[in-house]
Amino acid sequence: MEQMLRLLHACGMPKTDADFLNCDGPTMHQFLLEARPKVTLFTGSSRVAEKLAEDLRGRVKLEDAGFDWKILGPDVQEEDYVAWVCDQDAYACSGQKCSAQSILFMHKNWGASFLEKLNNLAKRRKLEDLTVGPVLTVTTDRILDHLQKLLRIPGAKLLFGGQELKNHSIPKVYGAVEPTAVFIPLTQMLRDDYFNLVTTEIFGPLQVITEYTCEHLPLVLEACERMEAHLTAAVVSNDAKFLQEVLGNTTNGTTYAGIRARTTGAPQNHWFGPAGDPRAAGIGTPEAIRLVWSCHREIIHDVGPVPKGWSLPPPS
Amino acid sequence: MEQMLRLLHACGMPKTDADFLNCDGPTMHQFLLEARPKVTLFTGSSRVAEKLAEDLRGRVKLEDAGFDWKILGPDVQEEDYVAWVCDQDAYACSGQKCSAQSILFMHKNWGASFLEKLNNLAKRRKLEDLTVGPVLTVTTDRILDHLQKLLRIPGAKLLFGGQELKNHSIPKVYGAVEPTAVFIPLTQMLRDDYFNLVTTEIFGPLQVITEYTCEHLPLVLEACERMEAHLTAAVVSNDAKFLQEVLGNTTNGTTYAGIRARTTGAPQNHWFGPAGDPRAAGIGTPEAIRLVWSCHREIIHDVGPVPKGWSLPPPS
Amino acid sequence: MEQMLRLLHACGMPKTDADFLNCDGPTMHQFLLEARPKVTLFTGSSRVAEKLAEDLRGRVKLEDAGFDWKILGPDVQEEDYVAWVCDQDAYACSGQKCSAQSILFMHKNWGASFLEKLNNLAKRRKLEDLTVGPVLTVTTDRILDHLQKLLRIPGAKLLFGGQELKNHSIPKVYGAVEPTAVFIPLTQMLRDDYFNLVTTEIFGPLQVITEYTCEHLPLVLEACERMEAHLTAAVVSNDAKFLQEVLGNTTNGTTYAGIRARTTGAPQNHWFGPAGDPRAAGIGTPEAIRLVWSCHREIIHDVGPVPKGWSLPPPS
Amino acid sequence: MEQMLRLLHACGMPKTDADFLNCDGPTMHQFLLEARPKVTLFTGSSRVAEKLAEDLRGRVKLEDAGFDWKILGPDVQEEDYVAWVCDQDAYACSGQKCSAQSILFMHKNWGASFLEKLNNLAKRRKLEDLTVGPVLTVTTDRILDHLQKLLRIPGAKLLFGGQELKNHSIPKVYGAVEPTAVFIPLTQMLRDDYFNLVTTEIFGPLQVITEYTCEHLPLVLEACERMEAHLTAAVVSNDAKFLQEVLGNTTNGTTYAGIRARTTGAPQNHWFGPAGDPRAAGIGTPEAIRLVWSCHREIIHDVGPVPKGWSLPPPS
Repeated sequence: MEQMLRLLHACGMPKTDADFLNCDGPTMHQFLLEARPKVTLFTGSSRVAEKLAEDLRGRVKLEDAGFDWKILGPDVQEEDYVAWVCDQDAYACSGQKCSAQSILFMHKNWGASFLEKLNNLAKRRKLEDLTVGPVLTVTTDRILDHLQKLLRIPGAKLLFGGQELKNHSIPKVYGAVEPTAVFIPLTQMLRDDYFNLVTTEIFGPLQVITEYTCEHLPLVLEACERMEAHLTAAVVSNDAKFLQEVLGNTTNGTTYAGIRARTTGAPQNHWFGPAGDPRAAGIGTPEAIRLVWSCHREIIHDVGPVPKGWSLPPPS
Repeated sequence: MEQMLRLLHACGMPKTDADFLNCDGPTMHQFLLEARPKVTLFTGSSRVAEKLAEDLRGRVKLEDAGFDWKILGPDVQEEDYVAWVCDQDAYACSGQKCSAQSILFMHKNWGASFLEKLNNLAKRRKLEDLTVGPVLTVTTDRILDHLQKLLRIPGAKLLFGGQELKNHSIPKVYGAVEPTAVFIPLTQMLRDDYFNLVTTEIFGPLQVITEYTCEHLPLVLEACERMEAHLTAAVVSNDAKFLQEVLGNTTNGTTYAGIRARTTGAPQNHWFGPAGDPRAAGIGTPEAIRLVWSCHREIIHDVGPVPKGWSLPPPS
Repeated sequence: MEQMLRLLHACGMPKTDADFLNCDGPTMHQFLLEARPKVTLFTGSSRVAEKLAEDLRGRVKLEDAGFDWKILGPDVQEEDYVAWVCDQDAYACSGQKCSAQSILFMHKNWGASFLEKLNNLAKRRKLEDLTVGPVLTVTTDRILDHLQKLLRIPGAKLLFGGQELKNHSIPKVYGAVEPTAVFIPLTQMLRDDYFNLVTTEIFGPLQVITEYTCEHLPLVLEACERMEAHLTAAVVSNDAKFLQEVLGNTTNGTTYAGIRARTTGAPQNHWFGPAGDPRAAGIGTPEAIRLVWSCHREIIHDVGPVPKGWSLPPPS
Repeated sequence: MEQMLRLLHACGMPKTDADFLNCDGPTMHQFLLEARPKVTLFTGSSRVAEKLAEDLRGRVKLEDAGFDWKILGPDVQEEDYVAWVCDQDAYACSGQKCSAQSILFMHKNWGASFLEKLNNLAKRRKLEDLTVGPVLTVTTDRILDHLQKLLRIPGAKLLFGGQELKNHSIPKVYGAVEPTAVFIPLTQMLRDDYFNLVTTEIFGPLQVITEYTCEHLPLVLEACERMEAHLTAAVVSNDAKFLQEVLGNTTNGTTYAGIRARTTGAPQNHWFGPAGDPRAAGIGTPEAIRLVWSCHREIIHDVGPVPKGWSLPPPS
């Protein structure tokens, strides 16, 4: 980053146009409180984001946290392709992407054969080629402990994974776990006792899978609405009315729709939800830059002329 | 307001689409804390605005407070028209408009004859036709006390007004003061001792007038920058380079530019600064409605088809 | 129209802003040649349109003629609704709308039962309530003669209608014919011998119906491409890939897509094809007004200042 | 150009996406008549443009011809800079640019000293460094002959130049003339006898200069309006009301406004007038590409659902 700034200076950027502060979080926090910038764009944990929003009195733009959902619609098609996208969304980079697929709502029509495909794809991953690898911010114990809690929910079952990696030399401060999927029944997930547990993001190769039928779609939408974090989402369907129903009832910042929908890795840059939240931030597109870094300003030019024969009106 | 809602219901608006709460501020505040709305648009005092921004973690859109400035540029022209606009901006509705002209930066070229015009226009106003009238939120004592403090600044002088209205029956809880203008030297105004005093908004018929020369324009711009409130502003000039200089160095939400510029009462609806502040709100135009009440949402459709001959890639 | 202009004058429109010429076509044509207006928006026959384009050297905006097609996709649904839309598109106002449905490409899946529905709907129409009525610009003889020519095509058959109205007193200079549908096989229609005949617009209650299967969709698209007139069109399908295929291979000005698609009577104002033709005109929307009545104009403001220390460069 | 296409092919452009025809004008003309393209963008002489507009029935986008004017406003400032821009606009590339300054309307305030500056700048130009050079499409005889005709207009006078270049070896089929300026009185220029002569474009280093006073500004605007060609223009003034008057009464495609205004060589790509003419073309900007090469197409999606409880309405 420092070298990038030096390059910009070499290209002619005025040295007073950008400051680069290399420090820890509390120092930067104190700096922001004293400098009182007009706007701060923060991408990081939602806990710090909320604190910044409070301390800076809302002069912030935030990246929402990501417990990203994907819904497979009733129209089953292109199963190999969809399974591959699911595998990549959940387990590429060992799931360490803010846009990773954290929960999969699968319409019953996709059936056991689709879960079989997911399992087979997960099994292709191995430590040797780093298609599974160390988890930087969550330890093996923390992941397995979370998994055990999930499996205690009535009706829960392990679909695949769930073991520490074999023959690895990853230090204890990191995580080393197989690509893992847990099935949780939709009605259990929605219970107040379990909802927060099920929708807690693990920044690693762990996803929740659940199943629904058309008549229970409202429960799926309720789950999506109740989640706090609304970063990315995917609605895997080409059924126009299904898309209309789901897109019209959800509010994620970046939502992919259509049979090829993904939660991550698409060519488009992200608009970081929380959609509908005035603090929502985005990056990379002209509109995102305009909305985040710039502002509406209304300048009304009225150079005249004063109409011929204007005369002084009475005051009001 | 209630009748308006009833009319909307009669026209077919679903009864669940708008709630109307008739209550005092603390009750509403408590309500907002518990209901946690996605966004709150607040127009009111900047003190409450800042508290809301903190308590609602920045999920707010705010109207900035208004200590609105007008700068008369070096190119003197249309003096009668400009004087009339100044009189209306400062004293119409007895100055009780968030967009009222609170301070006038007058280039020396406009001279004593222009102040004479302002004085004559102010003298036309009288209680009988309500071109001066009761001030609802500031008492006579508060206004005259503020005036005395201003007059104690070195070089300050009363230009006109400054007396309680004669023969009035306005109750003591309101204000009853003549249209008043106080001259404050620019350099005094900028002193830390006096700046907050001079730029305190009195929601009534009181304005500050100061004078500058081209070489002191940077002091005028510094004053505009140091003010906390950036609602409306006017740059009364048709000089392209002067406009460029002033518009490029100020950040008010709604700024009128040109020889007919005003701070208030123009046909355009307001964009409430604070410009550059992500919490800035606006009303009345399609763009304001979009920016305040709606949000960017990114939906990427990818209905396929999957390319012919697609085959499973390796994982990553 | 004259009274409308008088109303506009009464409302303050300058009398020099609009001229109203009440004359026959050749007079107006001569007038245009002599007045040489910057742009002429013409809505009328394609024959006159082409002549105007030539004589005015292309300073025209044109409404395309309408031999409007509708394609029913492979995904059969909402048959009663779709049949009703077809009936209205083809026979409301006795088919005398530039946007009337002139040809229906029906996927085989819709079957004989759908034709039965169309027939039943057509039978509801009667002279008494003017749901069938006089055709102003085509005589009965001309319509029946055209019908006979169509029926001579190999494989053609009358689906319903085809008779002069009974017990009517419509003068001979007008047309009086039942709502009529003729089936023409797709492959015959595409033959050079028949294509122009089949795609000749009859401004009355006559439509062509043909049938296709998925493998013959390219023939349907070829037919749409070969037609000269590209006013409105409808693709009745919610199948995302089918819509993509058809919309991507056609160029009509206004195209309705989706299971509720119609060729006429939708709330949106028309963009008159020919899409892709620089002479295409539209009405009624802000964008249409901008594209037809206004123009791009590039004004580059460069008020300076001239950079400090500028010195005369060498000539080039 | 051929090599550029080969590069595009090498980069993956499908070979069927662009055809490159290397032929003379009549061959291309015949080709266009037979191929009947949907739209043809033509940049070249206005004579051919008009013929194409007729033969292709207006399916064209045209670059207007350029007899480009510049108006120096009443507010004299930055004289050295403005003189330099005038010299470059008129004589860079020996005036062989479609956007070259062909006529200069000079407000009297600029005076003889400004003409002196123009003369001095022209004198800097010399054959050795090619700041004057061969004129490719107009011979010396044709230029000098045109000059003689101009000088026969009552009140006309040669301001500078007017001689064949000395010591040159430029072949007779080209032009070789000094940078030349002729003064023509405004009132003479407007006479029907002379107007076409004065506004004939010479694609070489020859400009007309005339003078006006504020009261004669309407004559200047009349001259600009009467010219056939409306390519580029410049209004050299920072006077807001003057700019308003001139910009509001002229229609050139690309107009530069402000004290630094030029007719040519600015960073912006050109919008080729004729502004207000539906055939106007542009290049280089996203908006130009959209307006010239693309078209408005209106696709209305209506995927439903059909309202619950919908029942068949009566026909109409």
